[in-house]
Amino acid sequence: MNDSADSAGVHTRFRPLDAIIAKRSGEEHGSDVIDALVRGYVAGDVPDYQMAAWLMAVCWRGMTQRETADLTTSMARSGDMLELSQLTDTVDKHSTGGVGDKTTLVLAPLLAALGGTVAKMSGRGLGHTGGTVDKLESIPGFTSDLDEQRFLRQAREVGVVVTGQSKDLAPADGLIYALRDATGTVESLPLIASSIMSKKLAGGAHSIVLDVKVGSGAFMRTPDEARELALAMARIGRHAGRNVTAILSNMSQPLGFAVGNAIEVREAIECLRGGGPADLRELCVVLAGQVLRSAGLLEDGADDVVERALDDGRAYQRFEEWIGAQGGDVTALDHLPLAPGQELIRAERSGVVSGLEARAIGRAAGLLGGGRSRKGEDLDHGVGVMLHAKVGDPVSRGDPVATLYHRGATGLEDAVAGVAGAVRIAEAAAAEPLVIETGVA
Amino acid sequence: MNDSADSAGVHTRFRPLDAIIAKRSGEEHGSDVIDALVRGYVAGDVPDYQMAAWLMAVCWRGMTQRETADLTTSMARSGDMLELSQLTDTVDKHSTGGVGDKTTLVLAPLLAALGGTVAKMSGRGLGHTGGTVDKLESIPGFTSDLDEQRFLRQAREVGVVVTGQSKDLAPADGLIYALRDATGTVESLPLIASSIMSKKLAGGAHSIVLDVKVGSGAFMRTPDEARELALAMARIGRHAGRNVTAILSNMSQPLGFAVGNAIEVREAIECLRGGGPADLRELCVVLAGQVLRSAGLLEDGADDVVERALDDGRAYQRFEEWIGAQGGDVTALDHLPLAPGQELIRAERSGVVSGLEARAIGRAAGLLGGGRSRKGEDLDHGVGVMLHAKVGDPVSRGDPVATLYHRGATGLEDAVAGVAGAVRIAEAAAAEPLVIETGVA
Repeated sequence: MNDSADSAGVHTRFRPLDAIIAKRSGEEHGSDVIDALVRGYVAGDVPDYQMAAWLMAVCWRGMTQRETADLTTSMARSGDMLELSQLTDTVDKHSTGGVGDKTTLVLAPLLAALGGTVAKMSGRGLGHTGGTVDKLESIPGFTSDLDEQRFLRQAREVGVVVTGQSKDLAPADGLIYALRDATGTVESLPLIASSIMSKKLAGGAHSIVLDVKVGSGAFMRTPDEARELALAMARIGRHAGRNVTAILSNMSQPLGFAVGNAIEVREAIECLRGGGPADLRELCVVLAGQVLRSAGLLEDGADDVVERALDDGRAYQRFEEWIGAQGGDVTALDHLPLAPGQELIRAERSGVVSGLEARAIGRAAGLLGGGRSRKGEDLDHGVGVMLHAKVGDPVSRGDPVATLYHRGATGLEDAVAGVAGAVRIAEAAAAEPLVIETGVA
Repeated sequence: MNDSADSAGVHTRFRPLDAIIAKRSGEEHGSDVIDALVRGYVAGDVPDYQMAAWLMAVCWRGMTQRETADLTTSMARSGDMLELSQLTDTVDKHSTGGVGDKTTLVLAPLLAALGGTVAKMSGRGLGHTGGTVDKLESIPGFTSDLDEQRFLRQAREVGVVVTGQSKDLAPADGLIYALRDATGTVESLPLIASSIMSKKLAGGAHSIVLDVKVGSGAFMRTPDEARELALAMARIGRHAGRNVTAILSNMSQPLGFAVGNAIEVREAIECLRGGGPADLRELCVVLAGQVLRSAGLLEDGADDVVERALDDGRAYQRFEEWIGAQGGDVTALDHLPLAPGQELIRAERSGVVSGLEARAIGRAAGLLGGGRSRKGEDLDHGVGVMLHAKVGDPVSRGDPVATLYHRGATGLEDAVAGVAGAVRIAEAAAAEPLVIETGVA
């Protein structure tokens, strides 16, 4: 149990049961109650069953903006805070997660090329394909295991550094998230917002842009839900003295054509060299412009400056410097190996691609071995899915629409069926904009 | 985890997480899900934190009548079921708990005198004063520790037997109640109803009357809440094939004048001899009449038959036989000792007693040592509070309104202040009926 001193100096014992009953009655918690709950849980003084009851009461009754900000701060402070104060112009991006989302690989060197400092801890994460760190580990020699001194030196000298997420960064969030996962309390806007933002606040960057995904492949199914989450996170950020803005972007179909690990790095490299899929480029330009403007590093509306950094090779050059600084073999970047098996999915009819269900395609990549379902599991960097058409593209019957790169794993048949089922072809397709809304703050 | 076989014989694994998510989404559980949850929890396969989250989701979303009945049945079947099928005309009463409620002591022999068989397991319970078994243990020699054979023989031969509640009777209820107590999930109508009824169903009696208390001294504060609970419990009973009816009775002031253990037995004996407080007698007559009618042992409206059994000594005779059969010294019944210390509370003004706050008076009896706050604690049978006036009685300044029987315990000063503060005297008092509603079913 935690003791907290009231203004008269009298110690009053914090009772988790009182907090549970207050929340189930719809009352607002004081900051001290939330902090005592979080610290007590990390210390093992608040048992799982009381935290679980409190979390369900939060799902029921919600939390005010102030409570949500307090919960975020308490979780952010529950472990080490990444101390970036000696760095200038720190910028960061967070995505709520989507299929084929290799944005960080492009954005980090792009922001550095334009004057920002990207010193980022990124998740390895669970899911159908790996996290950013997993994707980077497709590159021979690349290491995400840097000590603090090397991390800060690289941030200063190269302007980009990405490591795996430390266990000591917002440990309360990790513990609470695991409990939420086991107790049906994941779906709660204040809990989702505070979980994401606690890691961002502990991660230290001053200007942050959030990419909140909307659609069938995302956690948020409608723009309204996504906007609400974006606003909640932006408010938390402001409350903590950070520049936080958000965009809403479409995640009905995968981003770009590539879904996997090495295959996504290849596509990111194309983009960094001024090519690559139009949607990936557009998203990177919008995100970079917004966070650089909020950091005061770019004039209003100057997206052409961002585009130029992709087209003139500065972004790619910074990418090579970054990868090299973390031990990666830059000579290997042009031929990162994919799995040798190929399975082609062809259009079953002629028409226009009207749907590429992101979730199903992500799941297929996972079935091929591209993701992990448990912490610490190995994943296969070479497997993945390459789409040959996107929504709106015309196809003729028999045209290739996707290639699966595989090693004959047991899940191959299901993966093939999954991708085939994810492709919808119709007479016409409704155009869906990639970027739904910008400047959400 | 529990396995359950579906109709095709395929075993599907029960996942508590699915049940939690279904309930938080407002879905109705199938009987198999509820049973798997209860059995899994008792077996230790469903962890506390998942049960806690599910319980809070139930507080949020509620349960249908069918779910509530299923939960009750699963809890009732989680341990031994008292097998009363070889007994005839089994009747039972349950009260939701009040201050000065010695009804069982009167009702059990009264029902036996009128042809019912009362084979009852009763709680020792926690609270300001003891449970029925604690009160009975004020009688020298009385034992509540009977084996099943002796229990059933006494039921057949004497028509009344009361033992302490077995640990193996509805153990799921005990485990779940303890968790509810620690997780702020006590206040939920379906959980309260199923908790009470699981013990009643496991207890085996065929006809049951429920005394649902209403008012400041009770868990249910309004008649509407109480009626809802009564109806929920009656429905559960019917679902399980029992005759269950309820009454609502007032618990704003204590029942009778005596609050404690031995002091309540004394008052019950007065009632069994045709005297005693009017409210206690009224309640016993109403409860006895209702349950005997529902069991087919009494004609409609024949409450005078019940009153006669109190007045002509048959009820008291059956009481002596009962106490004697369980080893109690019946020669001691006329002079059960009270604690030697006496503290008199006097009226601070003249007027009419307008309130005797039941909860405060109960708490005072607890402070004197008459109750227990932890399982297994000893309690003092001799301490207690004797009121000298009830609501509606005129008093003059300086008149005695209550006597505290004590042994100079540390809580004495608080107990005196508590009783003094519980007495309200005004110009006039609103008459509140004792029995608010009968025949609730």
